[in-house]
Amino acid sequence: MPEFETLLVERSAGITHVTLNRPEQRNAMSLKMVDELLAALNTAETDGSRAIVLAGAGGHFCSGGDVKDMGAAQAQPDNGADPIAGVNARFGELCAAYAASGLPVVVVVEGAVMGGGFGLSCVADVVLARETAVFRLPETGLGLVPAQIAPFLVERLGYSEARRLAVTGGKVDAAAALRLGLVHVVCEGAHSCAAALSQTLADIKRGAPNAIAATKALIRRARLEPAGDLIQDAAKSFARAARSDEGAEGLTAFLEKRAPRWTEG
Amino acid sequence: MPEFETLLVERSAGITHVTLNRPEQRNAMSLKMVDELLAALNTAETDGSRAIVLAGAGGHFCSGGDVKDMGAAQAQPDNGADPIAGVNARFGELCAAYAASGLPVVVVVEGAVMGGGFGLSCVADVVLARETAVFRLPETGLGLVPAQIAPFLVERLGYSEARRLAVTGGKVDAAAALRLGLVHVVCEGAHSCAAALSQTLADIKRGAPNAIAATKALIRRARLEPAGDLIQDAAKSFARAARSDEGAEGLTAFLEKRAPRWTEG
Amino acid sequence: MPEFETLLVERSAGITHVTLNRPEQRNAMSLKMVDELLAALNTAETDGSRAIVLAGAGGHFCSGGDVKDMGAAQAQPDNGADPIAGVNARFGELCAAYAASGLPVVVVVEGAVMGGGFGLSCVADVVLARETAVFRLPETGLGLVPAQIAPFLVERLGYSEARRLAVTGGKVDAAAALRLGLVHVVCEGAHSCAAALSQTLADIKRGAPNAIAATKALIRRARLEPAGDLIQDAAKSFARAARSDEGAEGLTAFLEKRAPRWTEG
Repeated sequence: MPEFETLLVERSAGITHVTLNRPEQRNAMSLKMVDELLAALNTAETDGSRAIVLAGAGGHFCSGGDVKDMGAAQAQPDNGADPIAGVNARFGELCAAYAASGLPVVVVVEGAVMGGGFGLSCVADVVLARETAVFRLPETGLGLVPAQIAPFLVERLGYSEARRLAVTGGKVDAAAALRLGLVHVVCEGAHSCAAALSQTLADIKRGAPNAIAATKALIRRARLEPAGDLIQDAAKSFARAARSDEGAEGLTAFLEKRAPRWTEG
Repeated sequence: MPEFETLLVERSAGITHVTLNRPEQRNAMSLKMVDELLAALNTAETDGSRAIVLAGAGGHFCSGGDVKDMGAAQAQPDNGADPIAGVNARFGELCAAYAASGLPVVVVVEGAVMGGGFGLSCVADVVLARETAVFRLPETGLGLVPAQIAPFLVERLGYSEARRLAVTGGKVDAAAALRLGLVHVVCEGAHSCAAALSQTLADIKRGAPNAIAATKALIRRARLEPAGDLIQDAAKSFARAARSDEGAEGLTAFLEKRAPRWTEG
Repeated sequence: MPEFETLLVERSAGITHVTLNRPEQRNAMSLKMVDELLAALNTAETDGSRAIVLAGAGGHFCSGGDVKDMGAAQAQPDNGADPIAGVNARFGELCAAYAASGLPVVVVVEGAVMGGGFGLSCVADVVLARETAVFRLPETGLGLVPAQIAPFLVERLGYSEARRLAVTGGKVDAAAALRLGLVHVVCEGAHSCAAALSQTLADIKRGAPNAIAATKALIRRARLEPAGDLIQDAAKSFARAARSDEGAEGLTAFLEKRAPRWTEG
């Protein structure tokens, strides 16, 4: 496991738990944190983890981008590539990497979930929220654009709600987030949240890892491709799974009336 | 009307009622059933039916694919075309045919709604659920991929919920299904469900059949094409309807303050 | 401000308020009204308005297309271009213009919200509804196709609900519209509705106008483009905002702990 400066990363029972750990800055997402979140995902994808869980230290999930990085970028010379655009694109790559991962991604939010933190919530497969969570898109109120977040708002909320939030500043409390499908469970208190997380991870672990990754890949394509065009590739994906070790273990376990044992790193 | 082995098919008052009829297997979807469901749709589309209604015999809608067909496919030689993929693709073709039909499709679910049964629910225009309905995607728990279902999960639930269900195994009870838009009405008891079905069919019959088919076709294109690109084709579709027998009957009925009489097979 | 025959248009505190004003026809959308709604949008987009608000006079929002225009079109000779299709396409252009606008669009509905009125509700960023609002798609019941509305049903409600409404005639009351995301707030009485509108406009005005327009443009693209493909353009959009007068004012206001002052026409 690499060393991290802005994150706490623990691996336990096959799950990679990542805590954004800049509580004095309400876990503002610095460039360093962006790089480390990418590194943590890369590690989890290759070390046999069954899921990656993101949470924040100190009662907040993430207060958005770190203004210091932006200030530094603004001070840099533009050598053909705008340094502000470069910093911003790096955050977009982070979101895109999590959104495209075959690994299940779970996010646990509480307190401030702003800007980039809002974006990270939008790329998770499952979001659990403490009742204290408040989402907000402060960018337009600062004359800025929630540029890398916008596409993932659409992926999470659909086009219509994404538009409404973009135009009105995107303030959403936990109860409203549940109604919108921005979060999937709202928990009162840390104990209830831990229980909800355990349940979610148990649900994930019942599935075979490669089968889940293959399903996520098909769902991703289906967002923008006609279902009819996917029939042959889907059939190949099914046959590949049926003939795999996972398929064999699944069938055997079914016949032996026991829980299957999936590979775990 | 052709003979059916796995289905009960009745035509009544212009509606084709199809019952999946393998109650001992909780209506597991055999290859035979796939073929017969395609045949039933084809008949309903050409005999002037105003809608096709799918339901299950014996308290369950459908427990998913029949494992016997899969076993038989696994035993077959692979002559260039993987027989497992072939069986799976056939189910994808079934879903695609129902999803693309110009005919209104209504599904009534209860009890087990698993795998392929879940998929069929996703291709209906309207889904009515008994309070006993429980949806589930058991595939990944067997090392398999809900491959042909995945695209239709996205069509029904949107990308975000489809992802969440794929990753967590997709267990959804009737009340949660209503919140997600996976079903549109939850009915307690057979009597209330029959009343909801009557109401839905009456709503459908108020519309002109060709006009409904043309509207469904435009909506289908609008999922993946920009609205602005559809203006001219939409205008032609409108003009065609206005100049059709249906348009004439609609106008006359409106002026005569009576209900229109649409063609019915 | 140009003269209007079918609309009342007022500009107040940077907001363009448009009232559909044919109360005897329950604000049926004539060709004249279509043209004037396009002209009003064009004016609001260029005169520095911060938002455009559409409402209806006399207790109804809009009862759909004006049958007189259709009758006149039907009587016209078809000189290569079908006059009925031409009238219909003009309404499609109206919807497309509002849907693509960088300006925030707010619609306040009450009473009848039918056909084209339903369509206009679907292209707004925010919809406020009086409890009296009833949405309906009467077209198929008249042998016609809600042709230009169909794509915007998909944009507002998603593919699945759009299909259901198209097949069943689309009757939706205010409470159901709220559940479907067809409207965002339901208000009881005119006073409560005015307060909700004030709140929405205050939320909009906190954002910088160019930043909001840039965000809306990215969200629009994200409906049909993969998020990963937008990273570089999004980064440029972000950098442009950060280096703009709006970005400078946003930063200064933040440092001075005061509300930013955005340009207003």
